[in-house]
Order: sequence, then C-alpha cells, then structure tokens
Amino acid sequence: MKPSILVQLDTDDQPSVFDSVVAIDAGAEHLLRHHGITPENVRDRVYGAIFTRGGEDLARTALFIGGSDVRRGEAVLAAVKKAFFGPMRVSAMIDSGGANTTAVAAVLAVEKHIALNGVTALVLAATGPVGQRAARLLARQGATVRVASRDLARAEQVCEAIRAQEPNARLSAVAAGKAEETAAAFDGVAVVIAAGAAGVELASAHVLTQARDLKVAVDLNAVPPAGLAGIDVMDKGKEREGRVCYGAIGVGGTKMKIHKAAVKRLFARNDLVLDAVEIYELGKAMA
Amino acid sequence: MKPSILVQLDTDDQPSVFDSVVAIDAGAEHLLRHHGITPENVRDRVYGAIFTRGGEDLARTALFIGGSDVRRGEAVLAAVKKAFFGPMRVSAMIDSGGANTTAVAAVLAVEKHIALNGVTALVLAATGPVGQRAARLLARQGATVRVASRDLARAEQVCEAIRAQEPNARLSAVAAGKAEETAAAFDGVAVVIAAGAAGVELASAHVLTQARDLKVAVDLNAVPPAGLAGIDVMDKGKEREGRVCYGAIGVGGTKMKIHKAAVKRLFARNDLVLDAVEIYELGKAMA
Amino acid sequence: MKPSILVQLDTDDQPSVFDSVVAIDAGAEHLLRHHGITPENVRDRVYGAIFTRGGEDLARTALFIGGSDVRRGEAVLAAVKKAFFGPMRVSAMIDSGGANTTAVAAVLAVEKHIALNGVTALVLAATGPVGQRAARLLARQGATVRVASRDLARAEQVCEAIRAQEPNARLSAVAAGKAEETAAAFDGVAVVIAAGAAGVELASAHVLTQARDLKVAVDLNAVPPAGLAGIDVMDKGKEREGRVCYGAIGVGGTKMKIHKAAVKRLFARNDLVLDAVEIYELGKAMA
Repeated sequence: MKPSILVQLDTDDQPSVFDSVVAIDAGAEHLLRHHGITPENVRDRVYGAIFTRGGEDLARTALFIGGSDVRRGEAVLAAVKKAFFGPMRVSAMIDSGGANTTAVAAVLAVEKHIALNGVTALVLAATGPVGQRAARLLARQGATVRVASRDLARAEQVCEAIRAQEPNARLSAVAAGKAEETAAAFDGVAVVIAAGAAGVELASAHVLTQARDLKVAVDLNAVPPAGLAGIDVMDKGKEREGRVCYGAIGVGGTKMKIHKAAVKRLFARNDLVLDAVEIYELGKAMA
Repeated sequence: MKPSILVQLDTDDQPSVFDSVVAIDAGAEHLLRHHGITPENVRDRVYGAIFTRGGEDLARTALFIGGSDVRRGEAVLAAVKKAFFGPMRVSAMIDSGGANTTAVAAVLAVEKHIALNGVTALVLAATGPVGQRAARLLARQGATVRVASRDLARAEQVCEAIRAQEPNARLSAVAAGKAEETAAAFDGVAVVIAAGAAGVELASAHVLTQARDLKVAVDLNAVPPAGLAGIDVMDKGKEREGRVCYGAIGVGGTKMKIHKAAVKRLFARNDLVLDAVEIYELGKAMA
Repeated sequence: MKPSILVQLDTDDQPSVFDSVVAIDAGAEHLLRHHGITPENVRDRVYGAIFTRGGEDLARTALFIGGSDVRRGEAVLAAVKKAFFGPMRVSAMIDSGGANTTAVAAVLAVEKHIALNGVTALVLAATGPVGQRAARLLARQGATVRVASRDLARAEQVCEAIRAQEPNARLSAVAAGKAEETAAAFDGVAVVIAAGAAGVELASAHVLTQARDLKVAVDLNAVPPAGLAGIDVMDKGKEREGRVCYGAIGVGGTKMKIHKAAVKRLFARNDLVLDAVEIYELGKAMA
C-alpha cells in the first residue's frame, strides 16, 4: 500500500500549522502544504492528485481545504469538485476556520444531554460560518431553529440558504441585537449555541436568567467576556443554575477528535467529500 | 544510511503536486518543496544541499527541477551546475513540463515496433520542449529526422541547437503549416511523433492516409481534437490502417515509470545530472 | 509517542534547505516549513503548535527560527515568546544566519586550547550577529573581551548590550579600522575571533606577527582573502607560527554537530528556548 498523502490547500498567506499537526496526528504520512490557494490555481493541484496514482492507490491521496476564510474555502471546494471527472477523483474535506468541526462538536455536545427532535433551539450570531452550520445541523436533527442575528435581513438569507440544503428544516429568522430582542428570542428555547465573534457578549446574565426553558447552553467564544454571560471557557457539561453548560475549550476536545477522525476517514476511499453533514455523521458514529 | 531528501525546485507559483506524488512513490523519504525558484535564488538552495551532508551521505540528497516553463527550468539547471564545485555536488534531474519523461516515453514507444537506425522520422511541432527533445533522441538512435514547424526559421534553429549537442545527427528542417507542406513532410516517413499544443490538429486524416511508408505514429496531445487525426488518446500500440498508434495516455504509463525510476536513480550517486539523454538511457535499460 | 514535528519559521523569501537537512538528520520526523515569517504573522503559527497536542505530546512539537537576517529572527523569537502563555508553550531555537551555532563553535574551538578565565580576548567585527554572540560567550567564561569595530560608537553599543545580558562581563570597546588601531587592539591578546564579512581582511600578516601574546586564532570568514591573514579556511587546530589556528570550515564540523544536537534537544521538553547561551551550554556538555 502506498504512503498516504494529504494535500493541504490553504487559502491564507501561510498554511495552517494547526491543520498540519492534526493531519500528522491523524496518520497522514506525507503532507503537501500549499498556501495562497484560489479557485483558479487549485485545478492543477487536483490534477496532480488524481493523475498520479491509479486504482486503489487513488484512495491514498486526499485533499484538505483550510484557511481562515470560509467563503474562499467553499469556492475552492467547488473548483475542486469541478476538476474531478468520472472515477478520477480523490477524497476531500473542508474545514476552513474550523467551522465544520466546531459546529459539529457543538451540536454533538448538545445531543449528549437532550434529544433534538421537536425542541426549540436558538443560534446566536447564526450568520457566520459556524453559526450557519450549527443551525443547519440542529434543523436536520428535527429541532425548530431560531436563526438569530443583529441584522434580521441577513438572518432571513441564512434561513433561505439552509432551506435550499434541507427542505424539511423548521427555521425562523429572529432579530437579536437589543437586549429585549434577545430576551424574546429565548422564549421557549431549550438549547442555545452562541457562535459570535471573540470577546462579544451576545446574551447577558439577566437575559439568561429569564430564559426559563433553557436546558443546554454552548458558548463557542474563547476570549472573555463570554458570549453567554456566566459560562466559563472550560465548562464541559457543567451545571450552572440548572443548565448544562459548555465553553469553547470544553467543546474543543471533541472538535479535535472529530477533525482527526475525518482526516483519517479520507483515506478509506477516493470519492468522499467531507463537509458539515458528512463530518456530523462521522462524529455521531464516534459518540 | 541517512534518509533520502529530494529538494523540489519548482519555477511556478505553486509547487507541482504531480512531481511530489511521483517523488514520494519513487521512495523519497523527505521532500523539501520550493516554488518561485529562479536562477538567482537557487544558489542558496544548492548550498544547503551540498554543505550539510558529507561523504556517501551526499548521495542521499538530490535536486528535482520542475514547473511548467521548460526554458526557466533549463536556466535553473544551469545555475545549479554552476553552484556545484569539485566533489561538492548532489545529483539533479530536470523534468519541467514533463518534457524529458514525455519525449523519452514517446521514443521508447516507437522503438518497441521499429529499429530507428536508418529510418526517416518526422517530428511535428518540433520547436517546443517535448518536440525538440524527441527529435534529438530519435537522431541519436540513428534516425534521419525531419524537424517540422509552421515556422521554417524556427525549425532551422532547433536543428542547429540539436547539432550542437549531437554532431552526428542527420536532421533537416521542414515547413509543416499548410496541408500540402505537411503532406510533403510525410513523404518516405516511417515514424511520426506529434508534439503540438493541446487541441491542435497537426495532420489530417487525408494527409495520414497518403503517408504510405508510415509505420508508427505517436500523438502526445491529450485534448481533442487529436494532433494526428484518428489516433485515440488511449491508443497504446493499437493498429489502425496498418500502423501502430499511441495516444497521450497510451504513452503516459511508461512516462510515469520512467519518471519514478529517474527519481530513484538520483539517490544512487551524488554526481548525476539527469536530462533528456540520461533519462532516455535509463528508460532504455528498463525496457 | 507522537511523531516529532519541527516548525521551521524562516524570515527569508525561501525556507533554508540547510536548516531543513540538519533538522531531518537530527531526527525530526516531520518538518513544517514556512518562509516570509514576520513578528506579525508568527502568532498563528505558534497557536497551531501549542493548541494541537496536549500533555507530554506538547514536547513533540518544536519551533526553529532561521533565515539570513538575525535581527528579524530575534524579533520573531520575541513574538513567539509573547504568544506562549503559562504551560501552553513548545520549545524553540533560534539560529538565524547560523549565528548562534557559529559563535558557539568558535568559542568551543578556543576552549580546547586555552582556559578563558582571565585571558584577554579580541573579537574583530564584533558588531555583527556572530561577533556579538562570540564576545558575550567569551565574557561569560571569564575572559576580558575587547569588542572591536571600525566604528567605535557601534562597538560601545555592543558592549552595553552585552552588559545588559551579562552584568559581570569585563568588556571594552576598541576601534580597529586602520592598521595601527588593529595592531594596538592585539596588544596582550591571547585569543582572537574574526567575525567579519566574507572576503574582508581584518588583520594583516604584519599585524598578526606583532601580536606576541596570541595563542589561539579563529577566522570565521570562508571566502578568500582570509579575515586573519595566513589562516586557511580548512585549518582545524593547525599550528602556525606557534599559534593554534582555525578557519571557517575547520570550525564547521563542530557547528554542525551543535546544530543537530540542539534540534534534537528541543524534543526533550516543551519549555526550552535555545539561544546563544543555551546552545553554548549544550555544546560544552557535548565536548
């Protein structure tokens, strides 16, 4: 069997060390690290991956798309898929900004404590890459999801984008800029995932105390102050005022395990595309 | 014995994934991949290769020059040789644009079916890097070679360049732009190699039918329409109208084997320079 | 135990092949090579190194700062240290321009032949990165050091910089531009290290003959003419006119051994910072 090769396609100016270390720890024997990858220049990288090894050996080469900009990563993934033809393809994974593995880890953390089918869930800052993926995954599991943003129009757009992927999703856009809006958004909510920017408080202690139905709260912000007031970055299933709480580092261990498992999985076959849903299924099977 | 290290010196903006995968499959234990290599900045790379390991270990480090631009690659190779001094050198190979391994594979394909000594061979689009190398190799094996181009003056220049390398070569420049010219160029020709640009027909079905002495035809164009009308890209020794035919993919398997063997060969000693002729000799020994 | 990973942080436009080969020969199993590293962009590289592996595995990742510009390397090292927090750190080494390993090898060469405590030592071209480090290391071992430069003001600055690091150092700045100045600088000197630019003679044969107390002379210039007239680049403990002499290549073997040992040492723990003094201690322990 030929050595495994992971082609790291990073859209930033420097390739991610984080992604490389995880890849090595997932068992990738050789890393071909690229930076400055664009939808235009990725085609020849893909050709180099699909035209060198044949038959079963094709599964020993795989692609990893990363970098801080999730939109750019998605454009690169689209270009990668376009460069494949027929059986000439290798497996590919996208985890730009860690968005997929983070969203999956957050949703899996929630599911340890509550069955999602039929519950009402709220995603704060749901228009970012992590929030959007978390909302989609919650909806796929049967939750009624409130997609919250300061900007209601953008929240509506995200709902539409998710509905295009998940026709059965129960979604509604809600505004959550002012405190009263956020308080209203929590009404009847059992699960909240806060996916906001570093150091931005999305829900105050007062708002959270009023959220009487809240059972599980996940805050993905690692930089103080917390996105959900009162949650510690290290919280990992910690009970606070009757709610199970997770902080960013508390979710981090699962995120890392899923990331590694997904990279390992790439070498099982030559035709996988691991995006949010596929990575969720993988994480679910591990749990 | 120290681990083998291949320093990949690529003249493009991104290092070739193709060359890297082949190097790994050839057994290179470590790859040091560089892009944006120029004759100016390559010197310090060479110094890093020759001043770090001594004695027999020097043979465990080697250089591979690649990238899409063959002229640039040749300029880098010249700078590499200039940076060596005395016994302080490592083995180096150039295969920019795959030109060497492609030309060698084409000529070896021909030689499976006909002895070149004394035959008349035609190279279409002979002024490009692959064509020029194919013409040279055919001439070295004793063929009388017609070096064809739309531009007769450029064909003449290529003949002169080859004669400077191979004083005994039997070469003539021929114009092959218009159909009549191409038809005339085929007169008495037993072997043709078409080395033109992707998707450009160099000889029509009519011209080929008229080429009565033609026995072996190799078309290196992988993108339809074929360079030699009627040849399929997958042809590999396929008989068509009494001629043995090869298409680009039909030649590709041999090309890949030669590429791998050449990389492996680099680590046998520390003083090899593998360019067209040396790679041909290597391919010949494998056949 | 996880595979060892060395993150090569190079401040030049191309990562050093020299540093990579030495790292591989020191046993680093994976190299993550970066070029164009600045104090600004290094932080995310450090985060990738410290946030991926935990516990004892943290010692299996390390950082190497290199590149031709020592000042830039030092600024990167400062930024690296700033990015660490608490126990979240990995070991790091700086050898930009080979300055640390060269200065250490030079001082260790001297100490094979003379005990430094109490002797008078002269460093020519002491304001450069190698010279400054050599002066510091000599002073730490108890020598009275003359810090020489064509520019006395710059020599004074270097003395102050060293005193800030080594409060007990016995140092004086001396001008050594004109021949008379250099001759005077040698008065009573038992040890000289010449750390000047390639191909620049710092002390003539005449000046050296007059230096009656001189016992050990090290010239780190590899390009003729020699920095100390009469020393051959290959000299390695060679006696010339009653003095023990070392040339650049004569010191090179020790330099390389120290470089390799230092890289290997990085993986022993996760909290080492190997700069001039630490590398000296390591080299001393090997001698």
